[in-house]
Amino acid sequence: MKITDITTTPVAFRDPPLLNSVGVHEPWALRTIVEVHTDEGITGLGESYGDIGHLTRMRTAAPALLGLDVHALNEMHSRIATALGGEAGSDRHGLTGPLTVESTVDRVFSPFEVACWDIRGKALGRPVSDLLGGAVRTAVPYSAYLFYKWAAHPGAEPDEFGEALDPAGIVEQARMLVERHGFGSIKLKGGVYPPDQEIEAIHALREAFPDHPLRLDPNAAWTPETSLKVAEELDGIVEYLEDPAPDIDGMAEVAARAPMPLATNMCVIAFEHIARSVEVDAVQVILSDHHYWGGLSRSKELAAICRTFGIGLSMHSNSHLGISLAAMTHLAAATPNLNYACDTHYPWNVADDVITTPFTFVDGAIPVPTTPGLGVELDRDALARLAENYRTCGLVQRDDTGYMQKHDPSYERKRPRW
Amino acid sequence: MKITDITTTPVAFRDPPLLNSVGVHEPWALRTIVEVHTDEGITGLGESYGDIGHLTRMRTAAPALLGLDVHALNEMHSRIATALGGEAGSDRHGLTGPLTVESTVDRVFSPFEVACWDIRGKALGRPVSDLLGGAVRTAVPYSAYLFYKWAAHPGAEPDEFGEALDPAGIVEQARMLVERHGFGSIKLKGGVYPPDQEIEAIHALREAFPDHPLRLDPNAAWTPETSLKVAEELDGIVEYLEDPAPDIDGMAEVAARAPMPLATNMCVIAFEHIARSVEVDAVQVILSDHHYWGGLSRSKELAAICRTFGIGLSMHSNSHLGISLAAMTHLAAATPNLNYACDTHYPWNVADDVITTPFTFVDGAIPVPTTPGLGVELDRDALARLAENYRTCGLVQRDDTGYMQKHDPSYERKRPRW
Ligand SMILES: [Mg+2]
Ligand SMILES: [Mg+2]
Repeated sequence: MKITDITTTPVAFRDPPLLNSVGVHEPWALRTIVEVHTDEGITGLGESYGDIGHLTRMRTAAPALLGLDVHALNEMHSRIATALGGEAGSDRHGLTGPLTVESTVDRVFSPFEVACWDIRGKALGRPVSDLLGGAVRTAVPYSAYLFYKWAAHPGAEPDEFGEALDPAGIVEQARMLVERHGFGSIKLKGGVYPPDQEIEAIHALREAFPDHPLRLDPNAAWTPETSLKVAEELDGIVEYLEDPAPDIDGMAEVAARAPMPLATNMCVIAFEHIARSVEVDAVQVILSDHHYWGGLSRSKELAAICRTFGIGLSMHSNSHLGISLAAMTHLAAATPNLNYACDTHYPWNVADDVITTPFTFVDGAIPVPTTPGLGVELDRDALARLAENYRTCGLVQRDDTGYMQKHDPSYERKRPRW
Repeated sequence: MKITDITTTPVAFRDPPLLNSVGVHEPWALRTIVEVHTDEGITGLGESYGDIGHLTRMRTAAPALLGLDVHALNEMHSRIATALGGEAGSDRHGLTGPLTVESTVDRVFSPFEVACWDIRGKALGRPVSDLLGGAVRTAVPYSAYLFYKWAAHPGAEPDEFGEALDPAGIVEQARMLVERHGFGSIKLKGGVYPPDQEIEAIHALREAFPDHPLRLDPNAAWTPETSLKVAEELDGIVEYLEDPAPDIDGMAEVAARAPMPLATNMCVIAFEHIARSVEVDAVQVILSDHHYWGGLSRSKELAAICRTFGIGLSMHSNSHLGISLAAMTHLAAATPNLNYACDTHYPWNVADDVITTPFTFVDGAIPVPTTPGLGVELDRDALARLAENYRTCGLVQRDDTGYMQKHDPSYERKRPRW
């Protein structure tokens, strides 16, 4: 079954003003919807980042894949590497680490690979999880992903989520998300306020949710010294501390004395980073993410590496739509050692999706689709609407810092900040 | 597609008197042919060891797999682990390292997993290599696998391969194998004679075959000191030195000063061994072998680990039949970083196979089958004949040392020997 055409449609969907260590989410989150068409009339779906640099790279690579069989994933990866000509992407928004040449290829490869699994599952009448070794769980638990946030984007009406600028606001937000979706784990995006307030927020969460595993992720906003102080204060309270300090060496310094595991989606984000991280035991949990680890089969390879080296495995999320959630869910279902609840931004997107039946959490989990392929169908009207959003929203590149600076010209991006 | 029945047929095929560091090959090599039957009438093939302990474990595990879908590889692995109840197999013949509980599961899992890929390929009308990411080469190069050998099994007629007990005999054997099959790489099984003679044999091979990559594998017959002496003598002559000394620590000691990469199929033979080996840089090449690394998908995981940690990847062989060769070839074809010629004992088996069309080397390589599944078909008459061999040959457990001692009662198994 050969690839005859590839469509890449950048889309934008509404995003609340969620705060993080580099600024605040803009009113629109950008994604790209990838459709891979075949000579047998089956189309597969993928979803990836919408930033212009990445979109351009996907569009540069796509023509090289025409004519390829949907099974030829090795060849697909190598054609993409050739098409990109050794260029490394950059991480302008500052929330992941530096890209390498190889990880830039993995990132471009991912949505095409996912689409091929979707096609193969559809052709075979089997869910993608079956093609990845079979689901070991019927539903994939996700965590409630809490954010400090403004009540509204500047100049706009308040959104339905309300303001959360202090521990009480965070607990209230947690209650809302847990009540709505049944989440059994909670993650707080930190790095926004001085560590003491965020520690206080975690203590408040622990009090309000005595049995929920908790996590805190300041996106490398702290020095190793600060990280260690926080780690001591949160001993026995968080299941892991995510990216407290920048870089593998900084994390290793913290890990050597922190009482809990450290997790990352910032310092180990490519296969090239793993050996060094293992050498210095920088992280004890890696957050996989098929969007940048090179799709579903390479994410399974990452899982095998984690299993082999005694490293925990969890899952990272950026703002995303339902195609990504489907792929994340199939992958997590078919990965036995992915035994933390996964992260997802999905609950923050209440209005927009590109699939006909957006996902619903059941007891904090997404039931693994059992229909063929990814188990999701493109809603063409919705896609057209979100594509129009992209054309009119004026954004082509995520820039949380720039958006924050529009409203607070004195705001500086600084890492570590405390 | 569900598994309805599993047949495990132990077979024996004629094997020449090949010498190694623990004795000599017995007149019969033992294997087990696995047939996995499904409710859609498609049967898949696997091949594994024929030793009684392993055969018993496969037969213990098989009933637990009935009713399972052929895609449910994760579940299959975990059911086998449960069925085996935490027992670790043993390596009585002494040519591989100690088994772990987990690697015993991987070993039992392997032929069933391979059979499921065969079934899935047949159902889909695609070669197994396609299901593993797609072939990146159309033919898989193998090495000429040289052995010191007797002219005949004691009391029997000389076999067609002749005697090889010194460097001249080895060169003659190499000429025969290279002429017959076109091999472009040469491996000598050493550990039989004092190192000086084997060094001499390698020099003689280098002279006779100036452009063939060469390897020497004494199966851990040497101390680290002896290994280093050999390594110095063979600097610039062998592409890697395979298992010169026993154990990860012994290999690390050699690796620290040896001028060439060290390879292993003895000290890193399970996922549990990898972390320690990486830590001390014990080996620079791992010989994969789907029979003990847990089938084709886990062997691909091993390949990903090697790629990630900058470890070379080659392929190990025991005496085997055509089903194994088919699986090895599909795996190697779909593994981009498997870039050494693979080992195989196949040329030593000129008379017996269980497939209808035994493989033929073309320029030292096996063309990757492009027909559905593994691309091989069981020859029922041959299977019956080889199964009858098994029943009558009197062997149930490979024992190169015991066989040697029958003919030389003073022979001792000793490791290291020099
Ligand atoms: Mg993070
Ligand atoms: Mg060996």
